[in-house]
Amino acid sequence: MVSALNEDRLFPTDPEQRLIARRLYEAIKDRPIISPHGHVPIDWFAEDKHFKNPTDLFITPDHYVTRIMHGHSVPFSELGVGQKNFTEEQSRNAFRLLGKYWYAYAGTPMRYWMEDSLSNVFGINKPLNEDTADSIYDELNELLASDDFTTRKLVKRFNIGFISTTDDPTDDLVLHDKVRADANFPARLAPCFRPDRYLAVDRVDWAQLCDQLGESAGVNTATYEGFVEAMRRRRLFFKQHGAVAADYGVDPSLDEVNWSGDTTRLSDDVAIRLYTKARSGSLTSDEARKLHAHLLNDQAKLAQDDGLVMTLHPGVMRNHYRKQLVNYGPDCGADCPMPADWAHWLRPMLNEYGENPDFHLVAFTMDETAYSRELAPMAAYYPALYIGAPWWFLDAPEPILRYYEDVVPYAGFAKLSGFIDDTRALCSIPARHDMNRRLTARYISGLVADHRLSYEEGEQIAIRSVDGQPSDVFKL
Amino acid sequence: MVSALNEDRLFPTDPEQRLIARRLYEAIKDRPIISPHGHVPIDWFAEDKHFKNPTDLFITPDHYVTRIMHGHSVPFSELGVGQKNFTEEQSRNAFRLLGKYWYAYAGTPMRYWMEDSLSNVFGINKPLNEDTADSIYDELNELLASDDFTTRKLVKRFNIGFISTTDDPTDDLVLHDKVRADANFPARLAPCFRPDRYLAVDRVDWAQLCDQLGESAGVNTATYEGFVEAMRRRRLFFKQHGAVAADYGVDPSLDEVNWSGDTTRLSDDVAIRLYTKARSGSLTSDEARKLHAHLLNDQAKLAQDDGLVMTLHPGVMRNHYRKQLVNYGPDCGADCPMPADWAHWLRPMLNEYGENPDFHLVAFTMDETAYSRELAPMAAYYPALYIGAPWWFLDAPEPILRYYEDVVPYAGFAKLSGFIDDTRALCSIPARHDMNRRLTARYISGLVADHRLSYEEGEQIAIRSVDGQPSDVFKL
Amino acid sequence: MVSALNEDRLFPTDPEQRLIARRLYEAIKDRPIISPHGHVPIDWFAEDKHFKNPTDLFITPDHYVTRIMHGHSVPFSELGVGQKNFTEEQSRNAFRLLGKYWYAYAGTPMRYWMEDSLSNVFGINKPLNEDTADSIYDELNELLASDDFTTRKLVKRFNIGFISTTDDPTDDLVLHDKVRADANFPARLAPCFRPDRYLAVDRVDWAQLCDQLGESAGVNTATYEGFVEAMRRRRLFFKQHGAVAADYGVDPSLDEVNWSGDTTRLSDDVAIRLYTKARSGSLTSDEARKLHAHLLNDQAKLAQDDGLVMTLHPGVMRNHYRKQLVNYGPDCGADCPMPADWAHWLRPMLNEYGENPDFHLVAFTMDETAYSRELAPMAAYYPALYIGAPWWFLDAPEPILRYYEDVVPYAGFAKLSGFIDDTRALCSIPARHDMNRRLTARYISGLVADHRLSYEEGEQIAIRSVDGQPSDVFKL
Repeated sequence: MVSALNEDRLFPTDPEQRLIARRLYEAIKDRPIISPHGHVPIDWFAEDKHFKNPTDLFITPDHYVTRIMHGHSVPFSELGVGQKNFTEEQSRNAFRLLGKYWYAYAGTPMRYWMEDSLSNVFGINKPLNEDTADSIYDELNELLASDDFTTRKLVKRFNIGFISTTDDPTDDLVLHDKVRADANFPARLAPCFRPDRYLAVDRVDWAQLCDQLGESAGVNTATYEGFVEAMRRRRLFFKQHGAVAADYGVDPSLDEVNWSGDTTRLSDDVAIRLYTKARSGSLTSDEARKLHAHLLNDQAKLAQDDGLVMTLHPGVMRNHYRKQLVNYGPDCGADCPMPADWAHWLRPMLNEYGENPDFHLVAFTMDETAYSRELAPMAAYYPALYIGAPWWFLDAPEPILRYYEDVVPYAGFAKLSGFIDDTRALCSIPARHDMNRRLTARYISGLVADHRLSYEEGEQIAIRSVDGQPSDVFKL
Repeated sequence: MVSALNEDRLFPTDPEQRLIARRLYEAIKDRPIISPHGHVPIDWFAEDKHFKNPTDLFITPDHYVTRIMHGHSVPFSELGVGQKNFTEEQSRNAFRLLGKYWYAYAGTPMRYWMEDSLSNVFGINKPLNEDTADSIYDELNELLASDDFTTRKLVKRFNIGFISTTDDPTDDLVLHDKVRADANFPARLAPCFRPDRYLAVDRVDWAQLCDQLGESAGVNTATYEGFVEAMRRRRLFFKQHGAVAADYGVDPSLDEVNWSGDTTRLSDDVAIRLYTKARSGSLTSDEARKLHAHLLNDQAKLAQDDGLVMTLHPGVMRNHYRKQLVNYGPDCGADCPMPADWAHWLRPMLNEYGENPDFHLVAFTMDETAYSRELAPMAAYYPALYIGAPWWFLDAPEPILRYYEDVVPYAGFAKLSGFIDDTRALCSIPARHDMNRRLTARYISGLVADHRLSYEEGEQIAIRSVDGQPSDVFKL
Repeated sequence: MVSALNEDRLFPTDPEQRLIARRLYEAIKDRPIISPHGHVPIDWFAEDKHFKNPTDLFITPDHYVTRIMHGHSVPFSELGVGQKNFTEEQSRNAFRLLGKYWYAYAGTPMRYWMEDSLSNVFGINKPLNEDTADSIYDELNELLASDDFTTRKLVKRFNIGFISTTDDPTDDLVLHDKVRADANFPARLAPCFRPDRYLAVDRVDWAQLCDQLGESAGVNTATYEGFVEAMRRRRLFFKQHGAVAADYGVDPSLDEVNWSGDTTRLSDDVAIRLYTKARSGSLTSDEARKLHAHLLNDQAKLAQDDGLVMTLHPGVMRNHYRKQLVNYGPDCGADCPMPADWAHWLRPMLNEYGENPDFHLVAFTMDETAYSRELAPMAAYYPALYIGAPWWFLDAPEPILRYYEDVVPYAGFAKLSGFIDDTRALCSIPARHDMNRRLTARYISGLVADHRLSYEEGEQIAIRSVDGQPSDVFKL
């Protein structure tokens, strides 16, 4: 399918450097996609799903997209967020709103990804705006109805070699087993262990959550020992069912304590005492923070045995806008990063496990200032630590280039995580990886043009950065 | 008047991108100047003022200029700061000092603005230095004496469409009325409501200030209710006399408590109790901070009714050098920014008023790290929030380009404030706006050269950024 | 000796700008090296030392190099760190490891410096890797055995005009005197007063350290007055023996309190009381921090009389990995920067001494965010304050360019420290200074290409930045 997008997009403007970037990009552009962390729902892979309509594909499930329109006073409800029965007419209207506010996305990666998807996935090259929204909606609807645009067909077309979902520790992973057993599913699929809410020790429903965790593990979690054992068993269960990693967003409790990334261990006695208090819902905020830090450290401790890669991304104030949480629930765009303090957060964990080469800790910061100040210095030194690719609010061309400029000088390329798309927007996956490959080529072309690297070594590094590196970091 | 300055200054060096930047600049360079926030004294507009001499125009009133010479041990007094009877000879000597230390300004925007003003406003193109200072001083004196260089003539020549002063809430605005009533005044003029000292609840003279506020409003401010009513009335008075905005620098009390940008509301009972304590001068520092945060929130609350735009710029340690405050008073260059924590500061205010599209909150940070970490994520999400242009210590070419690179990827262009000159240096206004237009063209030319935007859309965005955007944000 | 390195390395890629950068570089590349702060051991200068072998030269003493291999699980012991009897075979193996992990250094300054040293100092131009490591080791060994590669021959060849060591306050400086008395020593040599451990008031061995300080000064340090007098005398002693500066890394106590850069003075009574408590080892952590801040302020106070330049670099968490401290001691790569708060740290010191032009305070930050937010605004204003060049984790091309872009707009060039190599790796000194000269040319070429500076003024600034500026700042 012919793309109307310029082949040199995101490359440097200097002609000499652009030639180098083109060559580097040529060497990596067609490599299979490795996506070690993402949020595509498992049922999209389990059945060969048809998308209901363009809004269901591009707008409603993607808070990157919806939050921008909300910033221009479009209610989330009009975009289908949290709507049980969102009609075809409402969906069409939501897409018209996207056309109307498309100018507001100028310069953003959401726009870049969608234009790339429209052109390269659907062959639609006319610019989106209020006038074209309807006809593009119709074209997309027609294509989505065809058998060429089902979820599995897309996974195949996107040349995805490895993809991970994100799952609750109590999940039975039956759907994952089904997909993994299916020789026709084109990619290697993995679940990801995401226990955040079971670590949110001051949630009003926390004791109940622990009981559910215990049931799924066949262990009584009335005691701290039981809780740890349940975690151990469920992690193992995930690993046995294909998981390579466990993910920690250190989400807040519903009571809006915001956990930091602190990983300080408590003595066993204190841990046991606070766990029991937590069960009875009588922790102080300070005790809750201390217990949370300890349980986070426990997860790293468990990883010493089961080898699951630990991905950690604290430092975000979740549900900054409380009405959003009440009306639409968490994870729909109302979060805001905060200043990070990685040197203190990780010190206890790295002092205990930082020299174990089989323990892989991938740190994703939402505060760019930590890249050169804390993450590069620590990742360069500690065998266990890798610097997570810029994601969420940082996966645009400018911050991706800043990331390389901030971390490579003191950590090199070999302590980076490789690209992570972190998305629930299936059709944006190739666009996101392609953007990253173009920018990786752009950054490396600068080192070659600067005569800091030979072209040959630059090409080796570029290739390694899209497959060898993520494969090693995530133990694929 | 022919300028000796290079027409391509501040444009990208890459020939291809430079052509794009030139074209974009051509489309915006002659648009009227919109200046929604500034510090030119009202009497400069009320009477058609002649400047006393070049020092009175370029040096004494501009702490951007004086602080650099102070950094090389030139006493402020020798530059006319705080001097009642500064003689012609002293003025001439101050200008010689500027010539002597001109090398120290190399690479700074102060130098760029002054060279631009000398060339484009006064047709003086010879380089300033110790040897030329005298003759330039003479040339300028001659021009300033002529009728072509009075304040109003300059406003007309500068093609200023809208300009705002900054004023005390008790100001009778008689001079503003006079100018606004004068058909000959070339620009739309507005006062700006700046109540900082009336919110500095631990000033030794605070109760007295409140009484003055009460008098000007015809309300007894002995009670908290009276204080709020007085604020309500004075804001309305300002609006009726042309104001579009209220400005908050959260200046410190004279006792050097440094307020943060915290906006947490208190319960009415607590607010009333602390207000009464404040009247009697018996607040603890902690109580003072809490009451200040509440009163700041109150200003946002009042804005829900009167619709004045709220411009907020906390995060600066005022009077970092105390001797400066004692010898010369505040606002003459002895301030220093501090780390910002916008996510926490604005959370209470945005949770209450953030979804009201008629409430416009423009946040100016002095800590660049907040742009991509907090301001872009919040402004993209909250309809009420706009990201203030880089000003004060951040209005140089480098930080202006960083600003675009930091905020556009996640907030787009439509949640930016538009350029703010924030200056008391009248002759620098066209130079400041021209610098910003050149850099806006430079940044957008990068997006076009990157093939992220079509030239046509880039031009629309550039045009919108110099008039439509500030007009909408400041409700002009 | 012909270098195989590209002559345009690190220059901008744009052809027009590259020509400007080349011309600027030509004007400064051969100027004598001024190195006001470094860590080369004095005995390397005292005797005309032969390096034992390439590992002893390039690996073991340089934690920049060793920490990267440690990050890939190479034990420090295998690199010779802390090894009493490291055999020739072990040295050779360590060099093989460097070849094996050379890919991990791609994009780092360590690699740039070593490639520059190998080519320009030793004429070795073949790429280092696992296969070439042995032969390069042999070639180097042969050269190191010859009389052309002794320490003094190298100092002469490197065209070093001034160089400083870093020394303990109790050092008798006999070796320095010997070198300074030797007409054959090619460079001006200076010791540097580094009293950190005598200010670490909660070290278990602190009282004992003070006694040693007292002995060396001939003063009883049982009292605070005695301590201050001892410091006064030792500073004077250092000055009389050639020192121009005193250096403060505010290292932590062995008990891992991390001092901040706080400089708050105590009342004399409190200082005396806390000093006495410190002698008896009974300070609380809070008291220790307060006394440390006071003693740091005292050092600035003493500088008012003796005029030693104060170089200050707080904000690093020393010994982040405690096992490293236990197994190998401090200063071997296990440190990590933290967020800085310079505006508060320096306020007390600058309020007392900031307007004294004879007091020179050079602030080195490990947190880049402080450059534009705090250091540039303060250095522009305070005559005493200079902004230290980026060093340690910040001396790579990218952060060096960011440094200029962050500080020049508001502090200009005349409040910068000039380049500091801060190294114990003798052979990397010319490479480090050359890298900085190339990047200085690159940054200034941008200002010239932007038409913000004439080429002529740009060249004057470039020349001044490599000799006049450091000579003035460090009073050479």
